[in-house]
Amino acid sequence: MSLETSRMVKMANAIRALSMDAVQAANSGHPGMPMGMADVATVLWGEYLKHDPKTPDWADRDRFVLSAGHGSMLIYALLHLSGYDAPTTEDIRNFRQLGSPCAGHPENFLLAGVECTTGPLGQGLAMAVGMAIAERKLNADFGDNLVDHRTWVIAGDGCLMEGINHEAIGLAGHLKLGRMNVLWDDNNITIDGSTDLSTSENIKARYEATGWHVVSCNGHDFDDIRRALDEAVADERPSLIACSTVIGKGSPNKQGTSATHGAPLGDDEIAAARDLLGWDAKPFEIPEQVLADWRGTAENGQNAYRTWLDRLSNDGRRADFERRMAGELPESFSLDDYIGKLIAEPQKVATRKASEMALAQINGQLTETMGGSADLTGSNNTKAGGIGPFTADDYSGRYIYYGIREFGMAAAMNGMALHGGVIPYGGTFLVFTDYCRGAIRLSALQEARVIYVMTHDSIGLGEDGPTHQPIEHVQSLRMIPNLLVMRPADAVETAECWDIALREKDRPTVLALSRQNLPQVRNTPDETGMCAKGAYRLKQASAERRVILIATGSEVHVALECAEQLEQQGIGADVVSMVCTELFDEQDESYKADLLPNVDPGKILRVSIEAGTTFGWERYTMANGLNIGIDRFGASAPAPDLFEKFGITADAIVPQIMNKLNG
Amino acid sequence: MSLETSRMVKMANAIRALSMDAVQAANSGHPGMPMGMADVATVLWGEYLKHDPKTPDWADRDRFVLSAGHGSMLIYALLHLSGYDAPTTEDIRNFRQLGSPCAGHPENFLLAGVECTTGPLGQGLAMAVGMAIAERKLNADFGDNLVDHRTWVIAGDGCLMEGINHEAIGLAGHLKLGRMNVLWDDNNITIDGSTDLSTSENIKARYEATGWHVVSCNGHDFDDIRRALDEAVADERPSLIACSTVIGKGSPNKQGTSATHGAPLGDDEIAAARDLLGWDAKPFEIPEQVLADWRGTAENGQNAYRTWLDRLSNDGRRADFERRMAGELPESFSLDDYIGKLIAEPQKVATRKASEMALAQINGQLTETMGGSADLTGSNNTKAGGIGPFTADDYSGRYIYYGIREFGMAAAMNGMALHGGVIPYGGTFLVFTDYCRGAIRLSALQEARVIYVMTHDSIGLGEDGPTHQPIEHVQSLRMIPNLLVMRPADAVETAECWDIALREKDRPTVLALSRQNLPQVRNTPDETGMCAKGAYRLKQASAERRVILIATGSEVHVALECAEQLEQQGIGADVVSMVCTELFDEQDESYKADLLPNVDPGKILRVSIEAGTTFGWERYTMANGLNIGIDRFGASAPAPDLFEKFGITADAIVPQIMNKLNG
Repeated sequence: MSLETSRMVKMANAIRALSMDAVQAANSGHPGMPMGMADVATVLWGEYLKHDPKTPDWADRDRFVLSAGHGSMLIYALLHLSGYDAPTTEDIRNFRQLGSPCAGHPENFLLAGVECTTGPLGQGLAMAVGMAIAERKLNADFGDNLVDHRTWVIAGDGCLMEGINHEAIGLAGHLKLGRMNVLWDDNNITIDGSTDLSTSENIKARYEATGWHVVSCNGHDFDDIRRALDEAVADERPSLIACSTVIGKGSPNKQGTSATHGAPLGDDEIAAARDLLGWDAKPFEIPEQVLADWRGTAENGQNAYRTWLDRLSNDGRRADFERRMAGELPESFSLDDYIGKLIAEPQKVATRKASEMALAQINGQLTETMGGSADLTGSNNTKAGGIGPFTADDYSGRYIYYGIREFGMAAAMNGMALHGGVIPYGGTFLVFTDYCRGAIRLSALQEARVIYVMTHDSIGLGEDGPTHQPIEHVQSLRMIPNLLVMRPADAVETAECWDIALREKDRPTVLALSRQNLPQVRNTPDETGMCAKGAYRLKQASAERRVILIATGSEVHVALECAEQLEQQGIGADVVSMVCTELFDEQDESYKADLLPNVDPGKILRVSIEAGTTFGWERYTMANGLNIGIDRFGASAPAPDLFEKFGITADAIVPQIMNKLNG
Repeated sequence: MSLETSRMVKMANAIRALSMDAVQAANSGHPGMPMGMADVATVLWGEYLKHDPKTPDWADRDRFVLSAGHGSMLIYALLHLSGYDAPTTEDIRNFRQLGSPCAGHPENFLLAGVECTTGPLGQGLAMAVGMAIAERKLNADFGDNLVDHRTWVIAGDGCLMEGINHEAIGLAGHLKLGRMNVLWDDNNITIDGSTDLSTSENIKARYEATGWHVVSCNGHDFDDIRRALDEAVADERPSLIACSTVIGKGSPNKQGTSATHGAPLGDDEIAAARDLLGWDAKPFEIPEQVLADWRGTAENGQNAYRTWLDRLSNDGRRADFERRMAGELPESFSLDDYIGKLIAEPQKVATRKASEMALAQINGQLTETMGGSADLTGSNNTKAGGIGPFTADDYSGRYIYYGIREFGMAAAMNGMALHGGVIPYGGTFLVFTDYCRGAIRLSALQEARVIYVMTHDSIGLGEDGPTHQPIEHVQSLRMIPNLLVMRPADAVETAECWDIALREKDRPTVLALSRQNLPQVRNTPDETGMCAKGAYRLKQASAERRVILIATGSEVHVALECAEQLEQQGIGADVVSMVCTELFDEQDESYKADLLPNVDPGKILRVSIEAGTTFGWERYTMANGLNIGIDRFGASAPAPDLFEKFGITADAIVPQIMNKLNG
C-alpha cells in the first residue's frame, strides 16, 4: 500500500535534508547522489525492500547494496529513517568524523544493514552478483520456505563504466539471476562533468546484449518508479532499471551539475534548497509525521520476518541452515585422517594437485563450499570432490565456471561470503591477482572468508614466461592487512593450510600453489598442525647451529638440500618453513625467539629462500642476513632451466652462505 | 593483388605447420589459435598490413597486436615467413627455450615486429587503443604526409570477456578510432570448454552498443575475409570483425575442441594433420614456393616505405618528427629556472598541486606530452599548461578524459608510449593502482615511458576512509621490477621527479602525491637535482649523530620536526629524504654508505617514517631500527585527526626514538 504522494515527497526530502546537512557539517562528502536518488530510494525502501530494521541479520532479508558508495549519506539516511538502531542522529551529525559509524564510504563492519563496503567503483554491483548467487544456492538447498529474497543495487555511471561491470553483468546474465535488480542513477554526470566527455555508449543496449532485462523510468515520479520496479520484479532475467534523475535534485542553483557531486552545497545554497523543497525543519531534525511515515514502512518486513520465523521453527533443516548462516563448520569436520594417510604414504605432487586432493576431502565433508575458476579449472585443480556446476538450470551445483573474469569472480566471492551460508573459493594464476587485487583488498577490509586458490606461483611454471611468472606477488599480498597468504611446501602443508583457511571466519586467505611437483617434506607423524603457527622448525641442525634457512613453498626442499650440503661441511643448519608470515607474526615472543633467536648475525646467519622478490625478507633475516630470491622479471623456459638461471638451487646458494660465514 | 587460393592455402598451412611443430618440440604451448586464425592472418599480413620487414621500426607502419598472446606461434610464424630478420628457423625450433626470442608469450623487447607484450588477456586490445590514439595525435600534428596508418588486433574470447575490454572499447568507440580494427577469433572455445559454460553474451550487439562497426566473416574463406576487411577499412568507426573459425583447424581429430587450446597435439595427430593439409615438408621446413609467396607479400610495404621516406625527406617538420619518434626531449627542455624560482619563494602546497605547477611548465615546453585522468581531473590536477581535450572532433588535443576506466587508461598509455611520438601521463587515486596494476606491471616489463600521477597517497586524504587510503600501495609498487616509485616531499622534489620521469626513456614512473598541503623543505639554492640520487641528506645532524630519520613524501616534514625535538635534547639527527628507493639502490656503495653508514644500530639508530605499511622498511633501517608506519587499514576522519590517531606526528614518534636509544 502506497502512501499519498505529498507524504512520499516529504519522506524523500528528509533524505535530501539529512544529506545536505551532514555533508555541510563535515565540510566533505557527496550530496549529489543521495539528493538525486532520494525519490527512487523512498519507493524502494518504503514499498519493495523486504527487511526488518529490528532484525538486521535476518537471513532471508533482501540485500541492498549501494554500489555508488560515495553517496553514503543515502544509506545512512535510509537506515536512520527506517528505524535501525544505528546510525543515530548523533552519528549522522558526526558524518566522516573519527569514531562515527557514518564513515566517508559505507563500511560493512561499522553498521548493520550495510551489506558490503563500497566506494571502489563497480565492486558493489559485482558483489551483489555474488549475493544473488548465494541466495539461489541456498534456495536450492533449503527451499522457498527458508530462502526467497532479492538483491537490490543502486549504481551510478561510474559503476557501469568500470571494467568489472562487464564481468559482473556477464556472469549475472549467464546465470539468469532474475532476483537481482540494479537501479541505475542515470543522471548524465560524472566528476569531470557531463558523461559526454568520456562515453558514447548505449548502456541499455549493452545490458540487453548481455542477457539483462532493461526498463526505464522517471526517477522523480513515484508511480513511474513503481511501474518500473514491478516490471523488474516480474521479469525472469536480472533487471537494469534506468532511473532518469537530476543529480543534486532540490538544490536550485546547482542541481544537474557536477558541482553537487563531491562537495558541500554551502550554507546559502542549502537555505535556498530548503525553500525550494518547503523543508523548514532544523538541520538533522525530522518532523514527527515524516519520521512516523518512515517508521511505518518497516511493518511489512516485520510481519514477513515473524511469518518466516514460524516457518523456520517448523523446518527440519533448521539446525543445518542456522549453522551455515552462522558460518560454523560441522563439528565433525576434520582433515586429520587424510593428513595422517599422507604422512604414512608420502607422495611427490604439485601443491595445486595437493589442493585438489584436500578439496576432495573438504567438498565431501562440507555442503557449503562453492568452488570455481576463472577459466583455468584444469590448471587450478579447483573442481574436486564430485561437485557439479552451478548453472541457470541447476542452482544446486557447487562449481562456478566464472569465465575469463578474475575481478568479477573475486568480487562475486566477496558477495557470497558476506551473504553467508556458503564458503566461496576460486582460482586463477597467482600473477593474475593483479587483475583482482581491488577485490582481494576488499575481502580483507570486509573481513570476508574468501579462499583464493592461486596456482602457478613462481618461475616454476616455466615456459609461459615473465607475464605469467609472479615475482613481486607473494610479498605484495603479504602487505595487505588482514589477509593470510599461505605458501605450502607439500601435500601435508597444503591440507593444513586449507583447514586453517576454512576455520578463519573473519579473514580471507590466498593459497599460493605450485605448478610443478614437490617432494613431501613433512613425514613425521607427531608433527601435525604446524602450519597454524605460521612458521615452524622443519629440520633441526645436527651440528652446532650456524645457519637458519627460512624458506616457503617450493623452496623448502631447496633449503633442505642446502642444509644437507652445509652439514656435510660441518655447519649446523635449521630449516624453517615460513608458510604464512602473518600467522607467524601473531605468535608469542618466546615461540618466535625460539625459532629465530635474536643473536649476532655473525653467530647465526639467517637466510631466506623464496623464488620471488627479496624485498621485505630483511624483516626475518635481519641486516646481515642473506636473501635469496629473484629481483627482476622472469623468462620463458622449462622450469628446471629457470631455477638454475636464477640461482635457486642448493649448488648456487650454498657457496653464498659459505662466503657470508667466512666473510 | 591477391594470390590464387591454392597458394594462399599453402601459405596458411605454413603457419599451421610451424605452430604444430614448435609446440610439439617445446612440449608446451598453444597450437589451437594459430591454426584456427591462420587463414585470417594470411589475408591480413599478405594483403592488408602495411609494413616493411626490413624496416620494422618504420614510424608509419601499421601496428599489429596479437592480443591473444598465448597464440604466440602465430606472430613468430608471420614474422619469419614475411622476412623479418628474426625469428630465424633456429629461433622457432627453440620456441619456449632459454635464450630464444620466441618466448612463451610475445615480448616486445625480444623481437622487432612485436609491438607489445601480450599474454595477460585483454591488455593487448587495450594497448592497441593507445596506439590508435597516438596515431591520430601524430596525424593531427604532422599530417597525412608522415602519419597515416592503421592498428590491427587479433583477439580471442578471453580478451573480449575480460573487464578491460569494456573500458578499452568504450574509449575507442567514444573517440571514434576508425583506424582500429579488431579481428575476433570467434571459435566458441575457452580453456574450460565451450564458451556456453560461462557466457551468454551477444558480443556483436555489445560492440554496436559501444559505438563500433561490426562485420562478420567465415574465417576460413579468403574472399569472405577480404570482404569483411574491406568493410572494416571503409567504415569510420572502429571495427570488430567477427571471424568464425574452428580452433585447431587442420587437426583432424582435435579441431573444434579445447584440447587444441593449450597443449601439443602429439606426434600422431600432427602426422594426421599433415595428411589432411597435404603438407609434406619436414618439421620447420617451408617449401620454396610457399616461402617465396610469403616473401613476395612484403613488396607493397617496401614500396610504401620508400615513398614515405621521400615525403619525409622533403618535409619541413622532419627534425621534430624524428626527435619525437626517437623519444628524445628537446635539448632546450629544462625545469631549472622554475625550480630556482620555487627555492627563492618557498610555498606550502600539496604535491598534487606542485605536480600541476610542474606540468604547466612541462606542457608549455614540450609538444609530446599527453595527459589525462580517470575522471578525477580536478583532484589529480593533471590538466595543466593550457592543453585542450583530445576528442573525436579534434585529435590535436593533448588531454584525454579517460572516464572511470583506470585499467583501460593505463593500458592505453602503454600503447601510446610503445607507439612512440607521445609521452603519456595519467592520473587516478593511488589506491586505485589496484585497479590497473596489471597494466603498471606491463609498463615495467615492456620498458615503456608511462608516467602515473597517483594522488591522495595516504591517510592524508582524510574523510574518504579506508577504501580510499593507500596503506600497502607504495611499498607494493616498489617491488615491481623496473618501475620507479617516487614520493616527493614538496614542490621542489615534485619538479625534480617530473624531470627524472620524463628523461627515463625505458622505465615507467609512479608519482605518489599528497592531497594535503605540505611545507617546502628544500630551500637551499645549491642543492638541486638531489632526487636523481633516490635519497639524499636533507638535514645534517648538528649535534653528534645518534639518529638517522629516513622519510618520504608527506612525512619528510614530520621527520624534520622529530629531528628538531631530538636536537633540543642534545641528540644529533640526520634527515634523509628517500624519494625513490629504486634510484637510491642504484647508487654506488660509497654514496650509500655515506648516507646510511653501516654501523652498530646501538650507535646510530635508523628510523623510517612513512604513512603506510612498515613491511620492507627493514631493508633501510636494519634489524634494530625503528619503523614508523601504519600496518592496518585506515579510517574516515579529517586528515589531522588521522595522523594523530595513527601516531604519525613528531610528538608520538620522538618518545619511541628516545625509548629505543635508552633501551
